This record gives sequence, structure tokens and C-alpha cells, in this order.
Amino acid sequence: MTATTLAYAAQSATSPLAPFSIERRPPGPDDVQIDILYCGVCHSDLHTARNEWKNTLYPTVPGHEIVGRVSAVGANVTKFKLGDMAGVGCMVDSCQHCASCGEGLEQYCENGFTGTYNGPVFGGENTFGGYASRIVVKQKFVLKISHAEKDLAAVSPLLCAGITTYSPLRQWGVGKGQKVGVVGLGGLGHMAVKIAAAMGAHVVLFTTSPSKIEDAKRLGAAEVVISKDPAAMAAHQNSFDFILNTVAAQHDLDPFIALLKRDCTMTLVGAPEHAHPAPNVFGLIFKRRRLGGSLIGGIRETQEMLDFCAEHNIVSDIEMIAMQDINTAYERMLKSDVKYRFVIDMATLEAKAAAA
Amino acid sequence: MTATTLAYAAQSATSPLAPFSIERRPPGPDDVQIDILYCGVCHSDLHTARNEWKNTLYPTVPGHEIVGRVSAVGANVTKFKLGDMAGVGCMVDSCQHCASCGEGLEQYCENGFTGTYNGPVFGGENTFGGYASRIVVKQKFVLKISHAEKDLAAVSPLLCAGITTYSPLRQWGVGKGQKVGVVGLGGLGHMAVKIAAAMGAHVVLFTTSPSKIEDAKRLGAAEVVISKDPAAMAAHQNSFDFILNTVAAQHDLDPFIALLKRDCTMTLVGAPEHAHPAPNVFGLIFKRRRLGGSLIGGIRETQEMLDFCAEHNIVSDIEMIAMQDINTAYERMLKSDVKYRFVIDMATLEAKAAAA
Repeated sequence: MTATTLAYAAQSATSPLAPFSIERRPPGPDDVQIDILYCGVCHSDLHTARNEWKNTLYPTVPGHEIVGRVSAVGANVTKFKLGDMAGVGCMVDSCQHCASCGEGLEQYCENGFTGTYNGPVFGGENTFGGYASRIVVKQKFVLKISHAEKDLAAVSPLLCAGITTYSPLRQWGVGKGQKVGVVGLGGLGHMAVKIAAAMGAHVVLFTTSPSKIEDAKRLGAAEVVISKDPAAMAAHQNSFDFILNTVAAQHDLDPFIALLKRDCTMTLVGAPEHAHPAPNVFGLIFKRRRLGGSLIGGIRETQEMLDFCAEHNIVSDIEMIAMQDINTAYERMLKSDVKYRFVIDMATLEAKAAAA
Repeated sequence: MTATTLAYAAQSATSPLAPFSIERRPPGPDDVQIDILYCGVCHSDLHTARNEWKNTLYPTVPGHEIVGRVSAVGANVTKFKLGDMAGVGCMVDSCQHCASCGEGLEQYCENGFTGTYNGPVFGGENTFGGYASRIVVKQKFVLKISHAEKDLAAVSPLLCAGITTYSPLRQWGVGKGQKVGVVGLGGLGHMAVKIAAAMGAHVVLFTTSPSKIEDAKRLGAAEVVISKDPAAMAAHQNSFDFILNTVAAQHDLDPFIALLKRDCTMTLVGAPEHAHPAPNVFGLIFKRRRLGGSLIGGIRETQEMLDFCAEHNIVSDIEMIAMQDINTAYERMLKSDVKYRFVIDMATLEAKAAAA
């Protein structure tokens, strides 16, 4: 017997998000049922709601930065008990038998992981995300939250923005004594600055907006470079151990590649709607530099990130909104008018429904 | 007192190569003087002769795949004696005190290595290459040749085409049990196939020309894929441990990036005159793949490559030409009408001079 759950959904690429009822499965033996308290608003939510990646199944319920309270557990569930705080990120399932799943890298599941919303990446039944009062997820894909209760809203963006930046920083061995660049100060970038600084790196934030200098330093950047200033950029040539590029808008990668030391890497975590200009091959060849990409992180690494952030008192800088404000929030997000992540207070969804 | 040496030079971007006299320094205490027997013809020679990289100093004497006989040594020279066979590749000097030089990676010298021709990469006095009867080079930048004497002409292309492919294959740990792609069957590609096969890899050659299938297999490729055939390409998705892309012409990188396994790399060693189309960021992000570059190799690694090739009986497939045929050879090289490297028999330079 399924349970009817309040949610917000888009019915088409052009319709705003609006109240919608979805069915959640009753918790099976391995499932955890979570009453959602907070859900962060990721740019992917907007891409999906508006079918900008041309793969949206409608109706769609976005949201994959979920924090809530466990309200039921299946018979086999050992990691969680009623009342525990729990998180759900971008994935709710994967094949569990391919090489990537075996290594704990479910985000690269050879058979396609199941997204928390918009269903399996490579086809199948649709799934509904965190813009809802409740979600039921396999224990294996549920994360433990050890932050203080007062921080829970600000923890939710860690489930996507946090792990998306933590994973490549870890993969490339960022730590003490290293000079690390972060390109862009948005939802991802502001998490990258906090996390890389906590890892002990000398963090340099690149932005096109002088208005962000002060904020970047407050968040942990040792230096801020205005990337439109060629002289400022030239001063950093060949000096970076790693650069994490969080900008999803189309831009020229070459000025950043030129800042890498020999044998070092710039990882892209933003996926632009229109391709970046082609990188100059000489920039790669003459210093044996590399351009890479990275996708969120595996479940084990997401737990590691949450524990690391709890230990270092890292949360997201957020602006709390009501569920009813989501369409306005999307418009503001498009103008980068948010510092640095909207988080939906899911109590507002229930309150409205109760009033109706 | 300098010694007048016969050579072939281009006097401008539009003039053909023609006889020219250059001065070589008398060997200093650390110098080795080599009477050049053979010089391979690299596409870089043509790029430089015609100023296609916009950095040519005229007159220019190309040639950096040099094999010859030692005809004089300075007082401090211990590695070579009169009559030894010796090789010179793309570099004749570097700063010797930066981090890269310290690691034996002179090709990435922070202060700019000195090219065998066309002078220091970052400015300075011009240097003249191997289209000449003689060259004088610091011992440190001279390589020992242990191949049989009958193979010397076919050894000369190892000094650039050999090391340019050997170095990235070694860097990325190519060996037994690995599936390795080589894109393009030209001067570089044919060396990559031979070397990767000798390293124990399962080598797949990608070409647009069905006429090259038989040759690629003879050279050591286990499989040949016609890269214009989408079905043939699709059969190899996500299956390569490493891909070495030797194609210098502008082409779409995405179909090759899609063939890499998670966390694997495609290295570019060709520098196109016009940029490749921008790679799709999703192709990098969804499998954490990387696009890199690589430039020749250091002196220590070049010696290692020569020894590896001698041990595995690897030489280049060559077509011998007379010095006087170089301009025709350039035209044929532009049409890929060579299997797989022209080598100049430098005796023809002396013979013509004697007859004149």
C-alpha cells in the first residue's frame, strides 16, 4: 500500500512548480522512510524542471539535497532508528554489482545509477525528489548526519554541492602546502572554498565580480583574483597544484589551464548548456597538464564528507525559503542572486496543506 | 674558431629549403661533435620551415631526429669516444637548475629548453638542426645508440617520434592486460603501435583509412577500428585504459573520449594548426575521464626508450631520401604519402658538395 505524499512538481518544461500529490512506496525490509525537514535547491533542479538537459520525465519533483527525520525503518535496517537525522543526496539506487559499485563509486555505476529524481539515468521508472514531505530510500543510500540540530537546514546543500566539490578535492590529494584554485563563487564554489581551506590548502578564488572578494575571504580564501584581469592572472601562471572549476556557464578554460603547474589538473564540475570554447592543445602539451571532470561522489565518500564537515563545522551559507517561493527562487538563482544556496523549509509545505 | 658546415636551410616562410653554410662551434670541454649520418623528417620541421607556429627565426635549419658518428669530444666527455654512434633529439640544452630539469624532465624546463633547431623556445640565439653534415652538442643531451649499425637510419625517427609516444605510454603505466588505443597511423602513430605492443598492451589502432588496416596489424595492432564508423566505435565504449591521440589535424575528440573507462586518460601529442572542436564536458564528468597532453620526453627517458627499442628490435618504418629531395618529401608528407617516416641520408649532402 503506497502512501500519498505532498510534493511540488513541474508538469511540463514551461509550467511553474505547483502542489502535486505523489505516491511513496511503503518501506520494504531494507528501506528507510524519512520525513523531510529541509531540501536544498540545486541548479540541476531547475535544469530538470525546465527540461534543459532534454531528458525530463513529467511530472517531475526535483530536490536532491534532503535532510529529515527517520519516521519508519524496514526489518533489515540496522544503520538507522526512528527519530534519527538522515540525509539523501543525488542517488537512491545503483546496480550494486558492477566494478564501480564494487569500489563504492555508485555515481559511475556502469548500468546507470537511479537519480533521486527524474528516474534512472539510463531509462526506467521515474523517481520523485525532495520537494516533498516524505521519501522512502534504501538504507544503503541514506546518510547519517552528525551535525548539531540547529545546523540541519544548512547541512542539506552538502548532499550535492558539498560532495560534488569534496570528491575531486580528495581525488587529487588536496591538502596542506598546496595552492588550490576555485573558479566561481556560487553554490558549488562557496562549498569548495570552505572545504579546501579546511583541508589545509592555500585557496585562491577566481571570480569575475569584485563584489565577491570580501565574501570569498570570509569563507576561507587566502587570495581572490579577478579573472578578467590579465595581469592578475599572469601573476599566478604555472603555480597551481589543482584547480576546481565550478562555473556552469560557457567560458574560456585556457586562462585557467595556464595557471596549473606541470602535471596538474583542472577538474570541471559544472556542465554548461553550451560548450566551452575548445581548450588550446599547447596549454595541455607544454606542461603535461590535464583537464578532467567529476560527478558528485559515492555513498561512502558522501558519508566521509558529511563527517569531515561536521568535524570542521562546515555547513552551507543559505537563504531559507518557503516551498511556495520556489519559482521566484529559480528566477533569482538564474541571476546568481543567492548567498549561496536556497533551502526549502519543508514545514511550509505541510502548513499550506493543513490550511487548505 | 668555428667550423663551416654544410646544411639545408629555409630563408623565409615561402622559400624552399636549399643549400646553406652554417658555423658550428668548436667542441668545448663538455661537447660532443657528431658527423651526421641520418636525420629523420618530422612534421615540426615543416611547421617551422614555413613559420606555421609563428615563431621561426630565419634562416632555419630543421632536423631533430639525428643519428651520427662521434668525430670529436671535449676534455670532460666520459660517455662518448671517437667513432661511437650517437643520437640527438629535440633538445640541445635546458637551464639544468629548475624543478623540471632536476627531475630529468628537461622538456618542461621552467626557463625554456633550447630546441635543436629554432633556438630557445622562449627566445635567445638561434640554433641549427640536423639537416647538416655535423652538429656539436653538450654531452648531457647526446644519446647512446645500441641498435645494430644496419638499423641506424631507421633509428633516427626514434629521437622524436619514438620518445613522443613512449613517454605518455610510460607515464600512464601502459602494460600487459591493458587495452590501449592509438589514434592515427602516421609517423607518431606507427611508433606508438610498435611500442605499446612491445609493452604488452592489447593495441587498437583508430584510422579513417581502411587502406591502413593491414599495415596496422603488421606493426602490432591487435584490432583496427575505422573511426568514421559509429557502430564500430560504439562497440568499444568505456573499454580503454588509455588512448594516445597522435592526430595533428583538427578533429572531434568526443568519440574517442567516450571509449575511455572511468578515470582513464586520452593524451594528445599532436598540435593542430586550428583548434579541435570543444570536448563535451559530460564526457569528462560522467566517467571522471581526463584529456591531457604530452611533449616529447626527458633525456633520461629518451635513453630508456632507445634501450627499450634496441632490446625489442623496434625501429621506424622509413623511406630514405637524398637531402636534395627534401622539398618534394614535404609535399608528400602533407598528403600523408610516406610509410612512415622520411629519413635523409646525409651522405647525399656531402656528395653533392664534393661534386659542385
